[in-house]
Amino acid sequence: MSARKPEDTRKAPLKLRRVAIDTYHENVAFLNRNCELYRAEGFQALSKVEISTNGSRIYAVLNVADDDAIVRPDELGLSEQAFAQLGQQEGQKVCVAHTEPPQSMDAVRRKIAGDRLQIDEFRSITRDIVENRYSRTEMAAFLVASVQNGLDREEILSLTRAMTETGDRLRWDATLVADKHCIGGIPGNRTTMLVVPIVAAHGLLIPKTSSRAITSPAGTADTMSVLAKVDLGPEQMHKVVRKTGACLTWGGNAHLAPADDILISVERPLGIDSEGQMIASILSKKLAAGATHLLLDIPVGPTAKVRHMNQALRLRKLFEFIGDRLGLHLEVVISNGSQPIGRGIGPALEARDVMQVLKNEAHAPDDLREKALYLAGRILEFDPDVRGGQGFHLARDILESGRALKKMEAIIEAQGASRSVPFTAPLTVDICAAQKGVVTAIDNYQLTRIARLAGAPMDLNAGVDLYKKLGDEVEQGDPLYRIQAEFPADFNFARTRAEHDSGYRIGKADEVGKNYMEF
Amino acid sequence: MSARKPEDTRKAPLKLRRVAIDTYHENVAFLNRNCELYRAEGFQALSKVEISTNGSRIYAVLNVADDDAIVRPDELGLSEQAFAQLGQQEGQKVCVAHTEPPQSMDAVRRKIAGDRLQIDEFRSITRDIVENRYSRTEMAAFLVASVQNGLDREEILSLTRAMTETGDRLRWDATLVADKHCIGGIPGNRTTMLVVPIVAAHGLLIPKTSSRAITSPAGTADTMSVLAKVDLGPEQMHKVVRKTGACLTWGGNAHLAPADDILISVERPLGIDSEGQMIASILSKKLAAGATHLLLDIPVGPTAKVRHMNQALRLRKLFEFIGDRLGLHLEVVISNGSQPIGRGIGPALEARDVMQVLKNEAHAPDDLREKALYLAGRILEFDPDVRGGQGFHLARDILESGRALKKMEAIIEAQGASRSVPFTAPLTVDICAAQKGVVTAIDNYQLTRIARLAGAPMDLNAGVDLYKKLGDEVEQGDPLYRIQAEFPADFNFARTRAEHDSGYRIGKADEVGKNYMEF
Repeated sequence: MSARKPEDTRKAPLKLRRVAIDTYHENVAFLNRNCELYRAEGFQALSKVEISTNGSRIYAVLNVADDDAIVRPDELGLSEQAFAQLGQQEGQKVCVAHTEPPQSMDAVRRKIAGDRLQIDEFRSITRDIVENRYSRTEMAAFLVASVQNGLDREEILSLTRAMTETGDRLRWDATLVADKHCIGGIPGNRTTMLVVPIVAAHGLLIPKTSSRAITSPAGTADTMSVLAKVDLGPEQMHKVVRKTGACLTWGGNAHLAPADDILISVERPLGIDSEGQMIASILSKKLAAGATHLLLDIPVGPTAKVRHMNQALRLRKLFEFIGDRLGLHLEVVISNGSQPIGRGIGPALEARDVMQVLKNEAHAPDDLREKALYLAGRILEFDPDVRGGQGFHLARDILESGRALKKMEAIIEAQGASRSVPFTAPLTVDICAAQKGVVTAIDNYQLTRIARLAGAPMDLNAGVDLYKKLGDEVEQGDPLYRIQAEFPADFNFARTRAEHDSGYRIGKADEVGKNYMEF
Repeated sequence: MSARKPEDTRKAPLKLRRVAIDTYHENVAFLNRNCELYRAEGFQALSKVEISTNGSRIYAVLNVADDDAIVRPDELGLSEQAFAQLGQQEGQKVCVAHTEPPQSMDAVRRKIAGDRLQIDEFRSITRDIVENRYSRTEMAAFLVASVQNGLDREEILSLTRAMTETGDRLRWDATLVADKHCIGGIPGNRTTMLVVPIVAAHGLLIPKTSSRAITSPAGTADTMSVLAKVDLGPEQMHKVVRKTGACLTWGGNAHLAPADDILISVERPLGIDSEGQMIASILSKKLAAGATHLLLDIPVGPTAKVRHMNQALRLRKLFEFIGDRLGLHLEVVISNGSQPIGRGIGPALEARDVMQVLKNEAHAPDDLREKALYLAGRILEFDPDVRGGQGFHLARDILESGRALKKMEAIIEAQGASRSVPFTAPLTVDICAAQKGVVTAIDNYQLTRIARLAGAPMDLNAGVDLYKKLGDEVEQGDPLYRIQAEFPADFNFARTRAEHDSGYRIGKADEVGKNYMEF
């Protein structure tokens, strides 16, 4: 490079270049170390910069490259997501400037110091997050502050409102728009794929958007993807709902409460749990999806997310408080979360269970069927024409008559059927009982881990298939469950983990935990 | 790519490739999206992976590339720092595996929940940080938890010990190894470069390692770099100290308490302040540097880091408690931090001030000289042969006799003199008083910002040169200070900021804040 000519270099903007690197939820910009602007402006690796051109503006974290093959001295590179977000052509002239930390970090620091925040502050924070002004560490600071000093219920309400406002809102032409949600943590708990067709077959509108698994072996969107296309845009989704009164899609394309998606991508890997963040996350998504009536499932059990009944009750009251203030009709079911639901754990195995129930097959898993009917019944009772207490029977009639199956087939057709996935996988092993007795406990966490090690949810047909449930009698050597995997490395990881600790406890019949839940 | 052959691909390791991208304190690994291992193992962008070969092992965050020019499908790319850390040749076969979140995150989560941590837990955390097992978000979680629930004094002690153990420890052949430290926040406060030659000229060992500026316009290492080479390795540093009894080097090469460096790189941009982290950071570095006697300077003022005397006293007691328990002789000076010290702000201007004092020039800044003599005097009194109260006079004798200058010249020669930097810069503007009166306040933060915008510390000769200090009388239009910069963009940023708010308040003589500090 020639000597720096300050006057000139400052005026020459850089040419935009797409750098084919996937950096997920973090925008990354690349400058060549020989870029005159780089040295002149005193940029440093990992500092935050603002990139603007043509009326578009994005924020990114700076990486410095020493290789012209990545970015040349007269170019500014952007990682794939950042490039898409800027929405400009390669070669376009762009300006790069230092950016100050987001103003709303002042509010985060006050939260860290123990202050309460107001709705305007939550609005600034969520807006700055959606505009990519926050680094991942800044988001972590906000999340940890929300755990430690906690959010009181007015703050949770404000955060919910602020998160809802960050994105779009779906509008439906109906006075009653039903939705359901489970706070999660129970493997195999795929009731949504039964509840939706039952409720829709009755005639209630239930446009269901779900997430993909982040820490579980399958999300509803993963499991549904075994049967149908799930990554529909808002347009296509509306078309499916107009046609069938329902949908079972992935919510990621609909731009619903996007601040929540971004925060979750930081929160989950940290393994921290902020009750306030969880409530705001769930309710902002439901509000944005246009729900008017919501049934919430809170499973309680020794290895569930919620361990004790009093904790579940407190959560219920918080949800009810926020729901009421937001004009959302909300009911909470506290359910039995002491073991996985159904038999399959993993997308294809769970889809198999769901289809067995819909087809009224004799060997369909009974617990999955009963729980789905109970939840669907409660939603049916949102309908003013359904008498209190009649929902369960109504749901059962819809299922047994085959109307639920027909509705599911209509939804699958409208979304676009998937190429069929085998419910089996090339590598399998049965994990067997080490002694005779009764199954007294099943560890949801351990089964989740084993199914994920086996390859779920990435490999749709990987996972765990349960043969025994709580209270079942076993002989020594009886298979407890089967692990199935696509690839040897995954298979060995999962098998080793299961052989070390099966997740099952075998004991005496009277050691099986009692269950006092609604369901 | 051909169809996946699971058996084979699992056995074929990837070839190591250096990706010329500077990602600073974050290790980044690159896989091509068409890499068979990538899809097979279910890696995701931003997931953490372990890379091992030949007995070396590092941890990195995964980025996924779609461009063979960055990384080919049979390669694993590593960013510059990660490549250096692994310490292997390009083309070397490497293994890549999923890595679980670090075990010690359990302790961090317990801290978030409000628990106290024990020394073993701090040891696990700092070890995992140094081994790059922590993502930046995980470090942010640890830091925020340390602010919110705070660290009690036993926890600070444990953290200090744990941080010290993460790195090397310098050993000196002396029973008294002196050191000084200022907690910072006062621009121009370059006393270290006067204290060190004075103390060394008296015959005490004072091997001083300093940091570069992170949020200030100049660190001691930046300012010293104007005069001499500062990035010496431990070997060279020992040689300089053997020769001169002192050194003034950058501490970054000495691997002293490296966990601290990494945590600071996350903490500073967040703008959060954990008292416990600060104390552990300072004392672990001093212990690792082999100090036996430490003088700590805590400036107090309305725009200093410490705003109130009671806060300074609490800090002093905390420092004393930890120092005593670690066998470090520690004394604290609470000083006047109500305005910048000296005239220059920025590496070259501060070096100029220092040399004026050392050369006993008539126009040398008096406040810098007096403060340096006071601090040097207190350190000289660590010497059992110096009578209490005689330190200041002794220091003054050493300075006035020219022995301090001679010592400084010896240190510069031993470290290697720098090519001389002009103390001026091509672009200058004087910021003038808007009214007649007396300077009643100078905002340390605003002056810091202006000097940094002007280009300090990256451009050594950029910064601010003060003409007026607290209590000075000014006429309307009198210059208060000069901004000097190398580049027009920087110059305009700094000038605009200063014209918006000069950082000076002009009022009546009796409005000048009183000062009750030791110095």
